[in-house]
Amino acid sequence: MTAASLADVVAALGGELHGDAARPVERIGPLSTADAATISFLANPRYRAQLATTSAGCVIVAPAWRHEVPAGTASIATPDPYHYFARLTQWWAARERPREPAGVHPSAVLEPGCSVHPQASVGALAVVGAGATIAAGAVLGAQCHVGRGAVVGARTRLAPRVVVGDGCRLGERCIVHAGAVIGADGFGFAPHQGRWEKIEQLGAVRIGDDVEIGANTCIDRGALDDTVVEDGVKLDNLIHIAHNVHVGAHTAMGACVGIAGSARIGAHCMIGGAAMINGHIEIVDGTYITAGSFVSRSIRTPGEYTGVFPLDDNASWEKNAATLRQLHRLRERLRELEKKIA
Amino acid sequence: MTAASLADVVAALGGELHGDAARPVERIGPLSTADAATISFLANPRYRAQLATTSAGCVIVAPAWRHEVPAGTASIATPDPYHYFARLTQWWAARERPREPAGVHPSAVLEPGCSVHPQASVGALAVVGAGATIAAGAVLGAQCHVGRGAVVGARTRLAPRVVVGDGCRLGERCIVHAGAVIGADGFGFAPHQGRWEKIEQLGAVRIGDDVEIGANTCIDRGALDDTVVEDGVKLDNLIHIAHNVHVGAHTAMGACVGIAGSARIGAHCMIGGAAMINGHIEIVDGTYITAGSFVSRSIRTPGEYTGVFPLDDNASWEKNAATLRQLHRLRERLRELEKKIA
Amino acid sequence: MTAASLADVVAALGGELHGDAARPVERIGPLSTADAATISFLANPRYRAQLATTSAGCVIVAPAWRHEVPAGTASIATPDPYHYFARLTQWWAARERPREPAGVHPSAVLEPGCSVHPQASVGALAVVGAGATIAAGAVLGAQCHVGRGAVVGARTRLAPRVVVGDGCRLGERCIVHAGAVIGADGFGFAPHQGRWEKIEQLGAVRIGDDVEIGANTCIDRGALDDTVVEDGVKLDNLIHIAHNVHVGAHTAMGACVGIAGSARIGAHCMIGGAAMINGHIEIVDGTYITAGSFVSRSIRTPGEYTGVFPLDDNASWEKNAATLRQLHRLRERLRELEKKIA
Repeated sequence: MTAASLADVVAALGGELHGDAARPVERIGPLSTADAATISFLANPRYRAQLATTSAGCVIVAPAWRHEVPAGTASIATPDPYHYFARLTQWWAARERPREPAGVHPSAVLEPGCSVHPQASVGALAVVGAGATIAAGAVLGAQCHVGRGAVVGARTRLAPRVVVGDGCRLGERCIVHAGAVIGADGFGFAPHQGRWEKIEQLGAVRIGDDVEIGANTCIDRGALDDTVVEDGVKLDNLIHIAHNVHVGAHTAMGACVGIAGSARIGAHCMIGGAAMINGHIEIVDGTYITAGSFVSRSIRTPGEYTGVFPLDDNASWEKNAATLRQLHRLRERLRELEKKIA
Repeated sequence: MTAASLADVVAALGGELHGDAARPVERIGPLSTADAATISFLANPRYRAQLATTSAGCVIVAPAWRHEVPAGTASIATPDPYHYFARLTQWWAARERPREPAGVHPSAVLEPGCSVHPQASVGALAVVGAGATIAAGAVLGAQCHVGRGAVVGARTRLAPRVVVGDGCRLGERCIVHAGAVIGADGFGFAPHQGRWEKIEQLGAVRIGDDVEIGANTCIDRGALDDTVVEDGVKLDNLIHIAHNVHVGAHTAMGACVGIAGSARIGAHCMIGGAAMINGHIEIVDGTYITAGSFVSRSIRTPGEYTGVFPLDDNASWEKNAATLRQLHRLRERLRELEKKIA
Repeated sequence: MTAASLADVVAALGGELHGDAARPVERIGPLSTADAATISFLANPRYRAQLATTSAGCVIVAPAWRHEVPAGTASIATPDPYHYFARLTQWWAARERPREPAGVHPSAVLEPGCSVHPQASVGALAVVGAGATIAAGAVLGAQCHVGRGAVVGARTRLAPRVVVGDGCRLGERCIVHAGAVIGADGFGFAPHQGRWEKIEQLGAVRIGDDVEIGANTCIDRGALDDTVVEDGVKLDNLIHIAHNVHVGAHTAMGACVGIAGSARIGAHCMIGGAAMINGHIEIVDGTYITAGSFVSRSIRTPGEYTGVFPLDDNASWEKNAATLRQLHRLRERLRELEKKIA
């Protein structure tokens, strides 16, 4: 990596610099392993003790803690060090990473009638379907597939090998990681004489602005109406969003989450990894679901909800699990005892 | 979309039309949001009350409920409205969606010795391996990969970017969604001196007719014999089917299900989303597994089975989970009390 | 398949042959369904009874059990029959499967400045980024994507359609199955005024030697440092490894496992399918996690750990689950009774 001076950092991102503006930093790193060429940060009070002993060249820190930064370490004081750190990583990535050139790679396949903005970038061996629109500054990674009539908004970036199905729409400044599938058919069948009759999925997927979608995550098209993911939603890897789900703005979901059909997830929710949400239920804004929980009913009151079997050593688990199967009977026995004694 | 007249619908799909045969419908939609250009349906008695107030142009309805359709709304009476609705979506999709042209896209790569029927369609940048067979009416989406000696049956449709491994076979009229991987190696290793020695997976995958396979779902090849998925099975997204599993005909599985090696799932089962089935067990025909359940033992009697920790607010969960770890001891204490009192 | 003689087998793999060295075998199979052209094995004492009745042409067997092999069936005596069987499948596969030719398929796209060893194989429609290195004997399947500056070690094989992100490194003799994504962004955001600010993920992924990675499995790049998977690790399908996770050598994980960010998994662990490991925890070497368990805290003592709700018929489950929500209160009632009686 190319070194940046602290003056460069502050010029780009603001903050109050204390120390030598010419000092070069070559990497961003945690307090505990930082050296003189590292710019670090203190966001979580838990790590405050590391401040005194860090060898970092510079620490991003809240004004209140600035006096704890050791002599010889520069500091950048800012009210929200973690947010500053996030912006620093963005600035760093923009400096370090090559920018995709505008234009269409000669090996890409553009079907007639698609519209690719001259300031968009279409990677090697990508396919853009008839009637699709790729807006200014959008980047399609190599081997992507954008279906017929689909829309990729301005400055949205698809990693290599993303599929956007026919008629699906992505807003602006989205990021979609490799292997994600947007717009496969929802899972809909009518039972008929012991067989399943397919219900063709006639809706599409609508994704807002500033949405991030993880690797190999799937968002199915709606049965009749669209599946909707609102602005600012962040989805980790290997998530399943079924048909006709509605995900409210700025909700975040950990990896391996599954949301069944027609569930309505509020805004500003956090769904922990591997949580599963039943179909046709509603979860109110600002709900927090613990990782690994199964949500079988609607949640009307914001709060934290959990449903996970506590881990134990296997021998103890065996005994407790066996008892658990008789729990209802245990309660009846307790009630009988209570009656006898009363 | 192009409007269809009710006469068109009934000519194609049957049913007893009451109302103006020339009335145009432009979309299919639920009763609650339907307008005069919408054809709707009443399948679930739960929504019966919506019939009186719907603004739909036409409702598909069981003969017994036809008299509840409001004046000004046409109706199509049919014994199984949901099945009729499913067929209507198919007819609608066939009208609206462009058909893939027969032939091989010039950018596709066909290895020597593969056989592609002249009435099959091979999309852009697809790869067909040596000795593979693509039957009449089959459609390989863009960027698909069909391995050596694999077979794709007549009228089977692969979405873009499906992988069918060497020697794997798909029957007729199957649908496979983007990112699905059929025929990766099963997970087999012999432990040896603290390391894992690979067991090469010499079997393949055999898929019957009318099977649907969801996006990013994986079906592994067998170790020695084949992994088998019988006719009419429907698999949602992100499912894992391990080596040597056998899935009986017309079984349906929700998203994120995992089936471990050599499990034998009966016919006409329903496996709820995110359920997990242990290896080497058998599940009898007609079993229903609740979403999120972990099935650790064979099921010999059809019925509904569940094993999910009930969701609670986090504070209550914490207290109950802590007690759960002492459940066996609680039972012993109860027994001691019972003895004292007896 | 081409027949091999028992002499061929023993010449390649060793062991003590009893019986006709010229006898041809055409397949490898289990004892129960073996015929005279099948070479079988007895590894698990559970199947010992099948030895007496097998029709196999040859059985791989421990010396102690050799005398139980029926007359007319040859045997190969070896101290670890299962390990011998594993090596036999490897030898068999090497005989049967076509070897990928060295060289670059004309349809592949090589960016300037990448380095592909003349003894490596790059499949149809693969993409190799600028500055990437493909070592001797490595095989990139069709439609693979190796990012800028990435490294694929000697004799490592990527199935079709694998993504290796920019700057990620795979060791030697690895196997990566279709759809796997190595090096997508980790899931990192700083909350700020109700929105999520992206933390660019500046680390990469480092994979050791002899690692196997299943279909559609995702291993995210680190936030600042690298995500690390050590030598000999085996990962099944649809696994999620989050940013900054460290997986110790020779650990194996079943399908659908999720490992959250910065978790540190020891060496020689076995993580059952669909188990979920919380972020920022440590699991000691030699730990066994039962399939489907949720691990919320560090494990310091090797052993077997479990946390799975036991399956039951739905009616029983309903009653027990309802009682479970009152478990803490039940314990209090028991305590009150105990006091009264004492």
